[in-house]
Amino acid sequence: MKSELWIEEKVEDQLGLRLRVDKILFSGKSEFQSVDIVETRAHGKLLLNDGLVMLTERDEGIYHDMISHVPLFVHPNPKKILVIGGGDGGTAREVIRHSSVESCTMVEIDKMVVEACVKYIPQTSGKLSDPKINLVIGDGVKFVEEAVKNDEKYDIVLVDSTDPIGPAQPLFGSDFYLNIYKCLNDDGIVVSQGESPFYHENMQHKLSEIISNIFPIFSVYNFSNMTYPGGLWSFTFGSKKYHPLNDFMIEKVKSAALDFEYYNENIHIGAFALPSFQKKNLHPFLKV
Amino acid sequence: MKSELWIEEKVEDQLGLRLRVDKILFSGKSEFQSVDIVETRAHGKLLLNDGLVMLTERDEGIYHDMISHVPLFVHPNPKKILVIGGGDGGTAREVIRHSSVESCTMVEIDKMVVEACVKYIPQTSGKLSDPKINLVIGDGVKFVEEAVKNDEKYDIVLVDSTDPIGPAQPLFGSDFYLNIYKCLNDDGIVVSQGESPFYHENMQHKLSEIISNIFPIFSVYNFSNMTYPGGLWSFTFGSKKYHPLNDFMIEKVKSAALDFEYYNENIHIGAFALPSFQKKNLHPFLKV
Repeated sequence: MKSELWIEEKVEDQLGLRLRVDKILFSGKSEFQSVDIVETRAHGKLLLNDGLVMLTERDEGIYHDMISHVPLFVHPNPKKILVIGGGDGGTAREVIRHSSVESCTMVEIDKMVVEACVKYIPQTSGKLSDPKINLVIGDGVKFVEEAVKNDEKYDIVLVDSTDPIGPAQPLFGSDFYLNIYKCLNDDGIVVSQGESPFYHENMQHKLSEIISNIFPIFSVYNFSNMTYPGGLWSFTFGSKKYHPLNDFMIEKVKSAALDFEYYNENIHIGAFALPSFQKKNLHPFLKV
Repeated sequence: MKSELWIEEKVEDQLGLRLRVDKILFSGKSEFQSVDIVETRAHGKLLLNDGLVMLTERDEGIYHDMISHVPLFVHPNPKKILVIGGGDGGTAREVIRHSSVESCTMVEIDKMVVEACVKYIPQTSGKLSDPKINLVIGDGVKFVEEAVKNDEKYDIVLVDSTDPIGPAQPLFGSDFYLNIYKCLNDDGIVVSQGESPFYHENMQHKLSEIISNIFPIFSVYNFSNMTYPGGLWSFTFGSKKYHPLNDFMIEKVKSAALDFEYYNENIHIGAFALPSFQKKNLHPFLKV
């Protein structure tokens, strides 16, 4: 009998998403979390932090399109971008496709994630040596504290975090967002990984409350990630000046003439159309 | 050691979606397929045909909202509706919420599905005894053939089918859609379960080719179903006269004042915004 190897992500020990594994490429334990990279036939290579699927090669383009291109096509001239987390490099890869971007600073707490992705997942990490990308291994919470002290300003902050357990927990707190507000320019935007509208209603409620209390413009937008539980996932959108739809420049998307896996101008607008159950949950906070 | 019971739906033996089962309520084998109803803690009761998840109580509202309310809010005065399949009763339940609807004929091939749902899933089957619903146990393919012969006409046909294996296979063929065209009024609309834009690109391409060859207006729209592989799922929209967006009457949604789980006017519009990878696949057929 030939045994089979599967990895499984469970939700509350009641629901599981499994992928059959051909080969384990890397398995390590950093001071923050366990880091695994496995090869699957269905979805190519996978990165897992503490056993949770962070990305798969086959569908990572969706997540990275949506975290980056939505705010970068709302801001008329984004030059300085800060990414908190995103150690796989996929977000930074998409950010620097925008010609206005002069620098993308990326603050990843876990060196092991970056090193494992550089070695095994060039699809996402392949642009990390680009001169526009400034990779910092460090704590994102402390980084924004320091940025405030040093009066460092950014046009857009992208919080590309794991789930609110382990090292990412402080990334879901109000102190962190107050500092992000302070280190954004007067027309700055922050976009953050917002969990599942369906399975994480409480967490989404809490995060929306925090960000909407700080930013005058706030909304949530959705996308489909095949390998996250339920497939329906979201980002929060906090903004000092620009409205995610009224200030969205469709012409800018057309003239950029970039080839996207998932994103396009209709997807941008449609992503802000929230299901009724989600609107009910977030109703007090939506300000668009 | 206490053993655990899980049900799992697999995609090509490489990817699996599992739900932990508390109790098996019904397990039968009809002349068409196996029919199972199980109780889970995560998603309530589940209906499975040939081991594939047809619905779960927790998220069935999404599918049934989207198959019915999109065409019923595009057609200005839908009176006579035909549902092919849909033995669980959820689609018919949503159809008769529209005050213009005079009759909803539902043709389900498998009596066992209806009987099991009537007994165990009143959430979807609870309206099957409504006088507006006319339940026929029979072959949907033959039913539309007969309807053409007898010059029976409908305003909207909803093809609420399982996957294109087993009894549902002919529901993905061009003869079936030619007959649907003929038994629709001159301003009729057909909406059909359209599989996954991500995992079933070939099937979606084929079905779109068939329907777009017959109907002058054709598009595809997406929604999120937590318990189908990948979560991103779609319906095809074929129409003789009405455009799914240009003829969509937002005011009608507002004045209907129905309480929806998932659907709303923005979701209606946003659902037709297709990801770039899907647009590339369906490009030759999209006529909206």
